[in-house]
Amino acid sequence: MKTTEFRQQAHQLVDWMADYLEQVGQYPVLPAVKPGDILAQLPALPPAQGEPFADIFADFQRVIVPGMTHWQHPGFHAYFPANSSPPSVLAEMLTATLAAQCMIWQTSPAAAELEERVMEWLGHLCGLPSGWSGVIQDTASTATLCALLTARERATAWQANQAGLNGLGAFTVYCSSETHSSVEKGVKIAGLGRQHLRKIEVDDQFALRPEQLQAAIAADRAAGLRPLAVVATVGTTSSCAVDPLRAIAHLCQAEGLWLHVDGAYGGTATALPELRPLIDGLELADSYVFNPHKWMLTNFDCTAYFVKDKAALLRTFEIMPEYLKTGIDQQVNNYRDWGIQLGRRFRALKLWFVLRSYGAEGIRCIIKGHNQLAQQFAAALLARQHYQILAPVNLNLVCFRYAPAHLREAEWETLNPQLLAQLNQTGQVYLSHTRLAGRYTLRAVFGQPTNTEAQVANLLRLLDEQVARLPMQ
Amino acid sequence: MKTTEFRQQAHQLVDWMADYLEQVGQYPVLPAVKPGDILAQLPALPPAQGEPFADIFADFQRVIVPGMTHWQHPGFHAYFPANSSPPSVLAEMLTATLAAQCMIWQTSPAAAELEERVMEWLGHLCGLPSGWSGVIQDTASTATLCALLTARERATAWQANQAGLNGLGAFTVYCSSETHSSVEKGVKIAGLGRQHLRKIEVDDQFALRPEQLQAAIAADRAAGLRPLAVVATVGTTSSCAVDPLRAIAHLCQAEGLWLHVDGAYGGTATALPELRPLIDGLELADSYVFNPHKWMLTNFDCTAYFVKDKAALLRTFEIMPEYLKTGIDQQVNNYRDWGIQLGRRFRALKLWFVLRSYGAEGIRCIIKGHNQLAQQFAAALLARQHYQILAPVNLNLVCFRYAPAHLREAEWETLNPQLLAQLNQTGQVYLSHTRLAGRYTLRAVFGQPTNTEAQVANLLRLLDEQVARLPMQ
Repeated sequence: MKTTEFRQQAHQLVDWMADYLEQVGQYPVLPAVKPGDILAQLPALPPAQGEPFADIFADFQRVIVPGMTHWQHPGFHAYFPANSSPPSVLAEMLTATLAAQCMIWQTSPAAAELEERVMEWLGHLCGLPSGWSGVIQDTASTATLCALLTARERATAWQANQAGLNGLGAFTVYCSSETHSSVEKGVKIAGLGRQHLRKIEVDDQFALRPEQLQAAIAADRAAGLRPLAVVATVGTTSSCAVDPLRAIAHLCQAEGLWLHVDGAYGGTATALPELRPLIDGLELADSYVFNPHKWMLTNFDCTAYFVKDKAALLRTFEIMPEYLKTGIDQQVNNYRDWGIQLGRRFRALKLWFVLRSYGAEGIRCIIKGHNQLAQQFAAALLARQHYQILAPVNLNLVCFRYAPAHLREAEWETLNPQLLAQLNQTGQVYLSHTRLAGRYTLRAVFGQPTNTEAQVANLLRLLDEQVARLPMQ
Repeated sequence: MKTTEFRQQAHQLVDWMADYLEQVGQYPVLPAVKPGDILAQLPALPPAQGEPFADIFADFQRVIVPGMTHWQHPGFHAYFPANSSPPSVLAEMLTATLAAQCMIWQTSPAAAELEERVMEWLGHLCGLPSGWSGVIQDTASTATLCALLTARERATAWQANQAGLNGLGAFTVYCSSETHSSVEKGVKIAGLGRQHLRKIEVDDQFALRPEQLQAAIAADRAAGLRPLAVVATVGTTSSCAVDPLRAIAHLCQAEGLWLHVDGAYGGTATALPELRPLIDGLELADSYVFNPHKWMLTNFDCTAYFVKDKAALLRTFEIMPEYLKTGIDQQVNNYRDWGIQLGRRFRALKLWFVLRSYGAEGIRCIIKGHNQLAQQFAAALLARQHYQILAPVNLNLVCFRYAPAHLREAEWETLNPQLLAQLNQTGQVYLSHTRLAGRYTLRAVFGQPTNTEAQVANLLRLLDEQVARLPMQ
């Protein structure tokens, strides 16, 4: 494709893109497709000859778009959001055009230094401890794995890297029973063994109980195991629960354990000074992750990973083959040594565009608005009387179930999955579920930049309609 | 930013993007910046209030672009290329707009099924063994780590995942002394220990010597160690050397070792049927990786990872927390379980656009052309008589040095780094270096879609000019 054609096609795409952003609320948020429906529309073999772009773009609109889940739909209340925003999309256009591979400083000096600066900006915006160093990673799963590996190496004086884990004893890791599955995945990858991950009991707000943590550490020490690290969460996936960081951090310091804080979702909230208590005690921890690609308007992937001891991180991951040496390696950040991958996209650009386009105030305003919408929704549910709120509404997530007084627990357990399926089949909203204290729980997150009170009202109306269609009413 | 403004700004960006692609050859391929130059132009704090997009875009052009290394410049002959192409950029625009998070089928059915199909297409295009399963990962570093982890788990009947590596013995991994640094990084992450990575001697073509491999395995067994896996390479980073797959594979089968094949760069070449001998024996291996984001016109990141035994991969990485369960998990590909990360971008779209836009023939034509350019360049160097070609020109990489007969080895070692620096300071080309058999080696890759004979002539002219400026001529 010549650049003249590229120019023409790209202009056409921009109009489609702007139309899409304007009309995304008119798509069914969840597509009505069955497994295999899309595959059946795609030829089994690649074409021998190139095809006109018009045909490809037509197939994109005909086959792909109707089969997508629309993550930017105002009715997307499932999981956690994967925020995008117009300035972020604009940055992605430029990133794709420059197509730089940002593995080391010399292969993209501006990208490396912009990354350093925007990570400082994020730290300032969110009230993180001073003196920490930040790097953009792809996902919180990866960042948490990096934390576990750095903990493993610090505890073994880098002997696990050197000689392997065999013979070094059994290391144990601690988190709450509500912690994200990426911790278990990381424990497995790091060679520690899932049976050495202790899922500590939570309190009635689904937050880790420090006294249980202390008891578990003591029991493991007594059994001859080697307590290694704790992962505390700011905003759990199921219910946005917040573990008591300061208490946990004191324990970790007393016990010599690495403390990694997973703020993947909740971390964005500390852009609001009044929500800084969420990370009270973070300065005592060792590492911290949160995802601007969830709730801070920046396209996936953009994970912010912060560490207190940069040297420990680099010593864990650094490589220096001849073909990657440059004359200025000691003066610059070569981000290949800050994580697992060698190759890296230019991800700092979208974060820079977002932080400048919205400014600190603009971001705070959106977060505050989302939290208010969640409170409104929860209040409206309670006012309806036949709903239960199943967890504290800490941020912008409401965990609830339909629990009419004329029915009982077992019936609620049957009705709520059905209610969820009905809601999602409307095509107007998408909610997901979890289990809290054994109860089937509906989750509604209000985290789309387009979310307003009208969307709260819309979801309530749909709930009323679908509840009326349930059996046993 | 409203969508009306987005539409307007995006159109403006498209014109900048098309101009950039037309004019990229006029930028200095390596920017003339020193460490800290960019940082000094970026304010220490994020703005409190949002800024007009015009200001941000102006700063992008004023501060960022002049500080970038231009990877799509026709004079970029360093490392390996990170190919982009107009259809790939167009796809990235749409991916950013849909902004879907493709962790499981339900969160993006069309993305999941398109990924399945384009990976089948790639397997067909490149002559991969039938019956294997493919998944798009971010980088070959990650894919190779996945291979090592799956090997670890298969060898321990998934006990390392369950109970950790302590007490399971010392596992050894084998590769050549020319293998990419990601293997050592993966061995460390997987908890095996770098001292258990055996870097087997290479022959005079820089390919692994199977008899040395066999001896190393035997010695390790005799020492009570547990030989685990071999990583063979198709196109090493330093010189594009190709390890003898079939011989290695037979050894691995006899010894019960996992064989992972790293075709990160060279793999693209097997789109040419006449280059299929590069992967002769692959059907006996266990896993294979190559990067369409290097030499197949697809924007970074897009790594193609193929495995013979899908079930072993999934069993190594699968997680199933309540909040990620859906009703159709047994019928679909949930790609979160095919690797390390939970979150995933919609990367199949750009590969689909590329494969359809160019077709198999279009891709073959580009690869063949690149290989011919490398042969032309090598022939022209030899015709000049004072150059040495330091490795077989297997694909599109030429490893060479300036070695005039009136000087000796020690002087060549001094002159070549200087020649490289002078060449790169012209701003017209960017080459990188390596060491082959201890010799300082210049590397010139001809892998840009825009590379033609004119660029070969240009590089030769620059070489002549810069050699004339060297001391001792």
